[in-house]
Amino acid sequence: MKNTIGTALTLTLFGESHGPAIGAVLDGLAPGIPVNEDDIAHALDMRRPSGKISTKRREPDEFSILSGVFNGRTTGTPLCIVIKNENAQSRDYDYGPARPGHADYAAYMKYHGYEDYRGGGHFSGRVTAGIVAASAIVRTALKARGILVGTHISQLCSVRDRGFIDYKEDIELLYNKPFPTLMDEAEAQMRSAAERCAELGDSVGGVLQTAAIGMPAGVGEPFFGTVEGELSRAIFAVPGVKGVTFGLGTGFAGVFGSEGNDELRYEDGKVEFTKNNNGGVNGGITNGAPVIFNTVVKPTPSIYKPQNTVDFIKKENIVHTVRGRHDPMIIHRARAVVDALTVITLADLLTVRYGDDYLCPEGK
Amino acid sequence: MKNTIGTALTLTLFGESHGPAIGAVLDGLAPGIPVNEDDIAHALDMRRPSGKISTKRREPDEFSILSGVFNGRTTGTPLCIVIKNENAQSRDYDYGPARPGHADYAAYMKYHGYEDYRGGGHFSGRVTAGIVAASAIVRTALKARGILVGTHISQLCSVRDRGFIDYKEDIELLYNKPFPTLMDEAEAQMRSAAERCAELGDSVGGVLQTAAIGMPAGVGEPFFGTVEGELSRAIFAVPGVKGVTFGLGTGFAGVFGSEGNDELRYEDGKVEFTKNNNGGVNGGITNGAPVIFNTVVKPTPSIYKPQNTVDFIKKENIVHTVRGRHDPMIIHRARAVVDALTVITLADLLTVRYGDDYLCPEGK
Amino acid sequence: MKNTIGTALTLTLFGESHGPAIGAVLDGLAPGIPVNEDDIAHALDMRRPSGKISTKRREPDEFSILSGVFNGRTTGTPLCIVIKNENAQSRDYDYGPARPGHADYAAYMKYHGYEDYRGGGHFSGRVTAGIVAASAIVRTALKARGILVGTHISQLCSVRDRGFIDYKEDIELLYNKPFPTLMDEAEAQMRSAAERCAELGDSVGGVLQTAAIGMPAGVGEPFFGTVEGELSRAIFAVPGVKGVTFGLGTGFAGVFGSEGNDELRYEDGKVEFTKNNNGGVNGGITNGAPVIFNTVVKPTPSIYKPQNTVDFIKKENIVHTVRGRHDPMIIHRARAVVDALTVITLADLLTVRYGDDYLCPEGK
Amino acid sequence: MKNTIGTALTLTLFGESHGPAIGAVLDGLAPGIPVNEDDIAHALDMRRPSGKISTKRREPDEFSILSGVFNGRTTGTPLCIVIKNENAQSRDYDYGPARPGHADYAAYMKYHGYEDYRGGGHFSGRVTAGIVAASAIVRTALKARGILVGTHISQLCSVRDRGFIDYKEDIELLYNKPFPTLMDEAEAQMRSAAERCAELGDSVGGVLQTAAIGMPAGVGEPFFGTVEGELSRAIFAVPGVKGVTFGLGTGFAGVFGSEGNDELRYEDGKVEFTKNNNGGVNGGITNGAPVIFNTVVKPTPSIYKPQNTVDFIKKENIVHTVRGRHDPMIIHRARAVVDALTVITLADLLTVRYGDDYLCPEGK
Repeated sequence: MKNTIGTALTLTLFGESHGPAIGAVLDGLAPGIPVNEDDIAHALDMRRPSGKISTKRREPDEFSILSGVFNGRTTGTPLCIVIKNENAQSRDYDYGPARPGHADYAAYMKYHGYEDYRGGGHFSGRVTAGIVAASAIVRTALKARGILVGTHISQLCSVRDRGFIDYKEDIELLYNKPFPTLMDEAEAQMRSAAERCAELGDSVGGVLQTAAIGMPAGVGEPFFGTVEGELSRAIFAVPGVKGVTFGLGTGFAGVFGSEGNDELRYEDGKVEFTKNNNGGVNGGITNGAPVIFNTVVKPTPSIYKPQNTVDFIKKENIVHTVRGRHDPMIIHRARAVVDALTVITLADLLTVRYGDDYLCPEGK
Repeated sequence: MKNTIGTALTLTLFGESHGPAIGAVLDGLAPGIPVNEDDIAHALDMRRPSGKISTKRREPDEFSILSGVFNGRTTGTPLCIVIKNENAQSRDYDYGPARPGHADYAAYMKYHGYEDYRGGGHFSGRVTAGIVAASAIVRTALKARGILVGTHISQLCSVRDRGFIDYKEDIELLYNKPFPTLMDEAEAQMRSAAERCAELGDSVGGVLQTAAIGMPAGVGEPFFGTVEGELSRAIFAVPGVKGVTFGLGTGFAGVFGSEGNDELRYEDGKVEFTKNNNGGVNGGITNGAPVIFNTVVKPTPSIYKPQNTVDFIKKENIVHTVRGRHDPMIIHRARAVVDALTVITLADLLTVRYGDDYLCPEGK
Repeated sequence: MKNTIGTALTLTLFGESHGPAIGAVLDGLAPGIPVNEDDIAHALDMRRPSGKISTKRREPDEFSILSGVFNGRTTGTPLCIVIKNENAQSRDYDYGPARPGHADYAAYMKYHGYEDYRGGGHFSGRVTAGIVAASAIVRTALKARGILVGTHISQLCSVRDRGFIDYKEDIELLYNKPFPTLMDEAEAQMRSAAERCAELGDSVGGVLQTAAIGMPAGVGEPFFGTVEGELSRAIFAVPGVKGVTFGLGTGFAGVFGSEGNDELRYEDGKVEFTKNNNGGVNGGITNGAPVIFNTVVKPTPSIYKPQNTVDFIKKENIVHTVRGRHDPMIIHRARAVVDALTVITLADLLTVRYGDDYLCPEGK
Repeated sequence: MKNTIGTALTLTLFGESHGPAIGAVLDGLAPGIPVNEDDIAHALDMRRPSGKISTKRREPDEFSILSGVFNGRTTGTPLCIVIKNENAQSRDYDYGPARPGHADYAAYMKYHGYEDYRGGGHFSGRVTAGIVAASAIVRTALKARGILVGTHISQLCSVRDRGFIDYKEDIELLYNKPFPTLMDEAEAQMRSAAERCAELGDSVGGVLQTAAIGMPAGVGEPFFGTVEGELSRAIFAVPGVKGVTFGLGTGFAGVFGSEGNDELRYEDGKVEFTKNNNGGVNGGITNGAPVIFNTVVKPTPSIYKPQNTVDFIKKENIVHTVRGRHDPMIIHRARAVVDALTVITLADLLTVRYGDDYLCPEGK
């Protein structure tokens, strides 16, 4: 599958940055889930650029639901949500220069020059708005089952945020933060780092940490349907993502087994883990602890500095300066998309495990 | 899909550690590829335990090809390869205690106690022998197209190996090394670290780095068919893997866009990259540079130390010491599986891109 | 997959009869295919109701392409086409009575009453307009490869049309016929049969025969990727279809092997078949002869006569007369959808076989 | 997918007629299902040739279960079943002559001459033994849920059997009949027709009718996951099948809507249908009535008469007589495979609908 993901709950994306609209089709979602337009608008707000650290292109992100909702609830048939492109400035883009770190050259080798190159075309982060909008509905359904998902910037350059402590409280805190950190100081320092970087015409990357609580134990599969594999495949769809690690992540390389292992104990008749280095997954299957993973986001490739590259149409070496509007950091916006794909992927895994009606109000 | 992966070229796994046999079915492989049993034996040798740093269970790994080969070449129909289990000591295992870091409890919650728990059952690394055997045939086909894949241990505890320099030479070097490092000193230090750890009854983790050269530009898809997503989903099938990052990986969090971007230039009419931080992939699509990624492998969860845990049958807290044979490190053996899954995944991506006959001698 | 079909070329449907719009997303289509809006309009015209034998609901079928087309050609990224619903009369429908032969009761058991029941909702033939629109673009691409597809009504009640004689000429003839028969007399008799039936408030069914010429030999797979299996799965998506048979179809039950077998011979160095009882497929794989199959379409279940049924909301037996507008025959309209799905399915099979660029102008 | 079918419950086939073994991997089957070797042997017996109307090749069909069963029950992980080939007479086959009605030429165009052509290779009906063996286990699980499946020969040449009357009783009757008819006279006449045909060196085809009772309403999907589409795709895997029709099938072409529609009524608070022309499916979804479909099986293409054909290696027209052992009729053996694929496909649809544990004893 190319622009479709999922087994029981599938998401299909379409659209280009400067085409008439972008959108998504969500299929296999249980019937009866309340659809709240404010929730969708809120999710889109979290992905929208704002302030000095974001592109000056501002999209109102007006969405229309074309199908799949009736009397304010999901029908169980495909839900198509469309978001118009309105603030596109196509004159800012030319074709031939391969912007370093971008997909221009790879896309040319794949699409033979027929690709819509304006504003990154189908490779634009703009396309992820459809993911985010669709996820808001799924999030409602997960919440009704006690499953909550939240993501924060755990690292930006050398600035680090604290980890999750009280998962529920922390996730609720993050829900309304367009610049999602758990500590206020971290936000201040990250903003200041990004702004200094923007002044240099450069960009910064970082790491997101995502937590999902409430997932029942026993979801996922060994080998080719692992929770890790399903999530990572989804998360690598986010433009700029270059790594996904679970729990302790790269930290596992430096610890002994006796430290890496999470011990178990019964508390009030329920299995608990003393720590969660494994990120809530063993053998590809949820163990009941929070699902925790980290997403590495590279610095925005669009920078204001001249770079050496090729013009693949003129077949010559050039020095090129990226024109147009671009973000010195995208990780806070990528957060919304990582969060959204987590919501959708977990809902898919749950639907595979417990059937089509698991997220339906009647399914309980 | 649970134990099947791939779109055009699919791999299906079966088997448990202490059942009669494990195996794999490879389907969609082009006809006409020479099948050399020595290559398969060699690949299996690289996965087999050896020396002080490995389990004392030694399997001869005798394989049989049940289908899909005729007159020494692939037929294009499913190739089933079966490896008997012969050295299983089932008395070493009991049921109920959840070994920390293992899938025991998660599996119980999924399979309700019907799972074959002996030696880890279907969760055993033993099952990966089928992947490794199958990959040897696919490797031959890729090689005929100029595509080579190799993996080394880039980090074990605090010991680091150098990165790839001359890709072709380095990959050829690694092919015959059961303890795969690029520097001899790294091997010596890593072995010594692992042996010290073994003496403590503990285990170590690390990081693998994989390189694939010769991949044409323009393979893969944006969003849900990215090279990163397809590879990571496959690699997370390897027991113990907790992270997959591409190119500079987590290093991206600490650099500016101007450093992270890989500049392009024409050399002799061919597009080259000045460096390869993006690991050969932009926008999910190969750019013609080597595909590079890193796999985080956690320390073997089986250790000789007593650990606190639960007995989920007796529903009580216990102190448990894992019995049986186990490896203080598995990363050198995981290497064979990561390598194998890379070979198979890239062959799948190429078959999707260029059609069923791409790897067939007649397809050129 | 629920509303998505295909392996390399995928089609995703969305929409309900009385929602804001219906549509389709076509993904995996090669870049560079010319997109002609007149062709799309023409395909939609063939599906649109007309004359005495069709519903009085008349849709203008104005479509918009939201993505995937740039400079008049496909880009290779998802193409979304949307068709607004404008002439919906929702007051004609009530909820509870299960119309015999319709999906009302089955849908209620699946969607628990959350389904959009107006005008059949997502079960409406209206949703197939998206298939038809999308297929027009794919048809252009197949034609450039010499592959043509056409469908006629081979039987309506007791009236029969002749079979294909000169395939190319016959297919071209059918292209412009909203009432697609190969003989003019057949059309006249079928129309007259349908009109008589309409006067009785009843409806008629029939059989469509489809031919695809130009398919190369060697496409498809044995067992679970057969040309027959892939086509039939697609064709059963058309509301009202209850059977799909290939070549001689049910006639095979009455002949001997010596009659059923199609003999081969070389003519001008090319393999030809003396007859085509097998419908161009052996062992699931094309043999180079025209692909021929027959689709059984049941009579429209909406009739003007009172019928015994249940009200599943009130839980009581009732006598019910279907209100609203409906067609005494739909087979001529189903033709457009069967034709469209054939075009899309064959393009998918070809893309799987020969790769992503097979239908791209550069791919030749 | 090529040799793998299913969404939640998948079946993967491998093997060739004259290779070491054929087999199947069943994945996604619920844990805890009792595995009875006698049931498997019985299912294989129903597929095995016997008497004058079958090939003289007699296989003992000794099977081994390599994985997925522990303590006599399914584990929930992949179940691999292997059946050795023992009675192969490879000298009977030569390569080049395209047997009319067989896949020889189509396979050559796909596999370029690398295919294992001995005894039909991977295209042999022999490969279906794996399907049949695997289905016996799934059948046990369906039965525990009250779902029964049976198939009879409804037509052979001009001889017809009666339809199902008391479904349960009829299905139980068929279970033990190697020549499956509901009326004894039908069997006698069909046998006699087949034997006369065998004397002429020719072969006969026919129609199978399959019934599945106990399927809950609300299973399946509109459009691309219809019960009809999923079943037909599976059934077309059976060598020789050329058509699949539901309920009244081709009879729909000759009736009015008022006759074709199945009226509903409440009986004892449960929805019943007065007749079952729609074969238990409306809008692609089960309606609670028995699922009924018909499978057209062409006459065995292997006949003892000389036929005109080509030698595609020598590139010349020839007259060819098929050597070796072959069946004058295969429809009674195809019955076992159609039955088996129905069992597996329905179990897959149920697992998708109700989740992984639906067929597990604990799932109830």
